[in-house]
Amino acid sequence: MLTIHRLDLEDARLLIKGASEKARDIGVPMCIAVVDESGNLVAFERMDGGKTTSVIIAQDKAFTAAAARKATHEYNAANVPGNLAFGIHAEVGGRLSTVGGGLPVLVNGEVVGGIGLSSGTPQQDMDCAQAGIDYFEQQRQ
Amino acid sequence: MLTIHRLDLEDARLLIKGASEKARDIGVPMCIAVVDESGNLVAFERMDGGKTTSVIIAQDKAFTAAAARKATHEYNAANVPGNLAFGIHAEVGGRLSTVGGGLPVLVNGEVVGGIGLSSGTPQQDMDCAQAGIDYFEQQRQ
Amino acid sequence: MLTIHRLDLEDARLLIKGASEKARDIGVPMCIAVVDESGNLVAFERMDGGKTTSVIIAQDKAFTAAAARKATHEYNAANVPGNLAFGIHAEVGGRLSTVGGGLPVLVNGEVVGGIGLSSGTPQQDMDCAQAGIDYFEQQRQ
Amino acid sequence: MLTIHRLDLEDARLLIKGASEKARDIGVPMCIAVVDESGNLVAFERMDGGKTTSVIIAQDKAFTAAAARKATHEYNAANVPGNLAFGIHAEVGGRLSTVGGGLPVLVNGEVVGGIGLSSGTPQQDMDCAQAGIDYFEQQRQ
Repeated sequence: MLTIHRLDLEDARLLIKGASEKARDIGVPMCIAVVDESGNLVAFERMDGGKTTSVIIAQDKAFTAAAARKATHEYNAANVPGNLAFGIHAEVGGRLSTVGGGLPVLVNGEVVGGIGLSSGTPQQDMDCAQAGIDYFEQQRQ
Repeated sequence: MLTIHRLDLEDARLLIKGASEKARDIGVPMCIAVVDESGNLVAFERMDGGKTTSVIIAQDKAFTAAAARKATHEYNAANVPGNLAFGIHAEVGGRLSTVGGGLPVLVNGEVVGGIGLSSGTPQQDMDCAQAGIDYFEQQRQ
Repeated sequence: MLTIHRLDLEDARLLIKGASEKARDIGVPMCIAVVDESGNLVAFERMDGGKTTSVIIAQDKAFTAAAARKATHEYNAANVPGNLAFGIHAEVGGRLSTVGGGLPVLVNGEVVGGIGLSSGTPQQDMDCAQAGIDYFEQQRQ
Repeated sequence: MLTIHRLDLEDARLLIKGASEKARDIGVPMCIAVVDESGNLVAFERMDGGKTTSVIIAQDKAFTAAAARKATHEYNAANVPGNLAFGIHAEVGGRLSTVGGGLPVLVNGEVVGGIGLSSGTPQQDMDCAQAGIDYFEQQRQ
């Protein structure tokens, strides 16, 4: 029997709060998705002005980061022609995202969920995802 | 040019709050989705214990109610063999839901979004969706 | 070698014009799709106020009527439990529509396209689809 | 509550008219899609001779340009191996197009819809999309 640790809704809200505060700071309204360790959605918010395409993209980034236990920008680095991983962005019906902005959420070295941001540049999305994780880790202590 | 009114994130949070309070009252953890008038997600929460299938079903109910401007239980009533609408539950890639629990959200007679609940019986889902709308209307005043 | 006859864009515009005039007469803004004999879109109009879900449903009705060479309400009549055709509404990824409102367009006894309407009741959708065909046949003479 | 501005059908017809006149000028029959600000189809025309694949591609380009508020050729520029956005062409079920020919339609600095062209070279598609916007802006005055 396996014992799994998984973000609860309160955890997800902390992640979204930290990410959205950073998004407000940089002036980019975002779509923010938090998923559990299996990649299924726990919470989502589209800030007023977030892009419609980003509703799905944010979820796909979070899904990828959690369910593959890897940041989407790490997949991005490997997703270049000639690399044996090239083409992975089309997997899982295109849900596997190789666009920066999806990060796994770890507790005690274990992936318990993922966070995905979309609407800014990939770097902005990554920064806000990290801000969500920073806030989550700070508030949990 | 058309002028459209659409729920903002603060509105969506009110809808989720009202629905989740009702869900707690009846002891059924729910997935709760709120979409804009075109059916795109604005906010989502899975209460701890909400079903994994309901992550999608709640979104599909909210999508249907908003984008078709009709409660999913109204589609349910028409979706019987022999009725000219029968089979509509498979439309839009199966996203058109005819399961009770999706309600359009109206302001001044105009559909501005939708709310969809899933994890309980359809009647429980409908009651919680209505509780979300009741709370939203009360708090907006 | 096969020789196929297919609606051109001018034909499609006539079909849409006739259907939309009827829709205006009955006061129901519609989504109107016209496809070729293979079910691929030739022209589409969403009248102001047409439903968002109907964007896809109208296309699926037209697709079904043309590509299966059968009105969607005829499929509806057969799509009842116990009938050997039951369940056909989920075929072709759910694109096969059994909801009234899709009609094949025939010229000299040959299916050259299809028209699909959505946003009203199935009967309203059927009436407007027929009005489109009537207008098309009248103008071609 | 948010207030959104959206193309109406008359606006969409202007965009298609301008684009198709340009397409006729250069001798390339096109598929032309116009969507609202959320990416849902408002009007579509396949000129006689337009490609069947382009029925979907034109819609995806228009969807992307409107719902992501960015021209598809701008996504194209970022969608190169090594760029953090690489792989984005597979997002949203593959509907996010990075092929030139999709442009957002702006009124008073706000995205109110999108236009997508397909059947020519990407540059021809872009030129015709721009011609649609030019004609729309000229006729609205």
